[in-house]
Amino acid sequence: MIRSVSFIGAGNVAWHLAKALKQAGINIVEICSQHLQSAQELATQVNAKAVTLNELNNKSDLYIIAIADDAIVKVAGQVKPKNGIVVHTSGSIGIDTLKICSNNIGVFYPLQTFSKQKNIDLKSVPFCIEGNNSSTEKSLIELASKISNNVNLINSNQRKQLHLAAVFACNFSNHCYQIADELLNSSGLKLDLLFPLIKETASKIETVAPKNAQTGPAIRHDEKVIQEHINLLKDHPDYQNLYKFVTQSIQKSHE
Amino acid sequence: MIRSVSFIGAGNVAWHLAKALKQAGINIVEICSQHLQSAQELATQVNAKAVTLNELNNKSDLYIIAIADDAIVKVAGQVKPKNGIVVHTSGSIGIDTLKICSNNIGVFYPLQTFSKQKNIDLKSVPFCIEGNNSSTEKSLIELASKISNNVNLINSNQRKQLHLAAVFACNFSNHCYQIADELLNSSGLKLDLLFPLIKETASKIETVAPKNAQTGPAIRHDEKVIQEHINLLKDHPDYQNLYKFVTQSIQKSHE
Repeated sequence: MIRSVSFIGAGNVAWHLAKALKQAGINIVEICSQHLQSAQELATQVNAKAVTLNELNNKSDLYIIAIADDAIVKVAGQVKPKNGIVVHTSGSIGIDTLKICSNNIGVFYPLQTFSKQKNIDLKSVPFCIEGNNSSTEKSLIELASKISNNVNLINSNQRKQLHLAAVFACNFSNHCYQIADELLNSSGLKLDLLFPLIKETASKIETVAPKNAQTGPAIRHDEKVIQEHINLLKDHPDYQNLYKFVTQSIQKSHE
Repeated sequence: MIRSVSFIGAGNVAWHLAKALKQAGINIVEICSQHLQSAQELATQVNAKAVTLNELNNKSDLYIIAIADDAIVKVAGQVKPKNGIVVHTSGSIGIDTLKICSNNIGVFYPLQTFSKQKNIDLKSVPFCIEGNNSSTEKSLIELASKISNNVNLINSNQRKQLHLAAVFACNFSNHCYQIADELLNSSGLKLDLLFPLIKETASKIETVAPKNAQTGPAIRHDEKVIQEHINLLKDHPDYQNLYKFVTQSIQKSHE
């Protein structure tokens, strides 16, 4: 059973995880960060020590590396506990990157977008767990279940696919919101007008598959409206191209 | 003041509007539809008569034409009340299409996606109102305010821009959800995993402008992850192109 955790990283993910684990009764031993001030801020919140990489103790049950993807490889070589498990929290890095750290390695990936300023109820956040052996997996699942009701065993290949899907569903959707925002602003309107529709679109897919939930001029092949929209976008050639491209993609995917 | 309403159309929009107006104390006189059965179903719900276009009375205070865009033009010539206001509920049709009907014409556009099966609280739905004179506008605003707290005066040009923005924010986002769904299915995963992230992405923009809310590999110019994603999409050339296109659009719009 995991009773003590060391954090490498003091960014958004570490911030939310450390606080939730502390609240679940886990001992947060130390917060290690290049940015000592960030480490200290978080350490204060969870009653831990702020340390540098050299000062990291080697006796915690779990080491959570919650830092930028490309930094994980660099740091991995310096996290070598006696017996503890070492995990990272990344969507796109394979488990093998941590081989150098320990015989017990894994992934502890919370599938959500985090900002320090915004509280998020971790209970509904999907945790994607992977371990290089079954006892590690069991320990990680047990730990994740203390802070979330949505714990899933996901291997590295699946996690990469999940991360790609998240880019479409979230980053690309958000880009569409941004374009809508710009178009409305240029007509003296505000994005607020679309909030109810955006919310409904996002929640509808919980009961209707998105393919069946599609509406609008593209799927109706309403060429008159499509042409009007293309004309309206004449001052935004990039968005005009994007409009044509996505319209075609919607139509093709429903052929 | 509008006390009596006739509906032309018995589809999704008519269904929700008629029931809400009835509940607000408005007399729903009649429901007119090519599909007599649909008209009868709705008429029963709101204690109205089901009629054909020829049987339409000419004394209602308001005639709401809630039918497909291209049918509005065809029907308009047959709706000629004595004094009543005539409106349509379309996002993309100008007000002038109704000139033939009456001296008092307008638009009564609820900006939401409706399905008969799914109840929607109209209170938060933005109603976009336009009238060809101020007394008509006043009457329509008064009526809309009985069923919604979100009533807006929007002219035809703005409404067209709003409709275009809605295509980006909703139809195109939904297409991104669909692609995510397909990618997950092909890895034995379910879209459920992304629900919390999709919800958070949709609600985050109520407090942070979408341009500032953007995250992910595109805006980070994380070429390694982008290249990995492009490789993962090798069996889906359409989605691979879309990925490249939207990634570039995100990067350009943040230059």
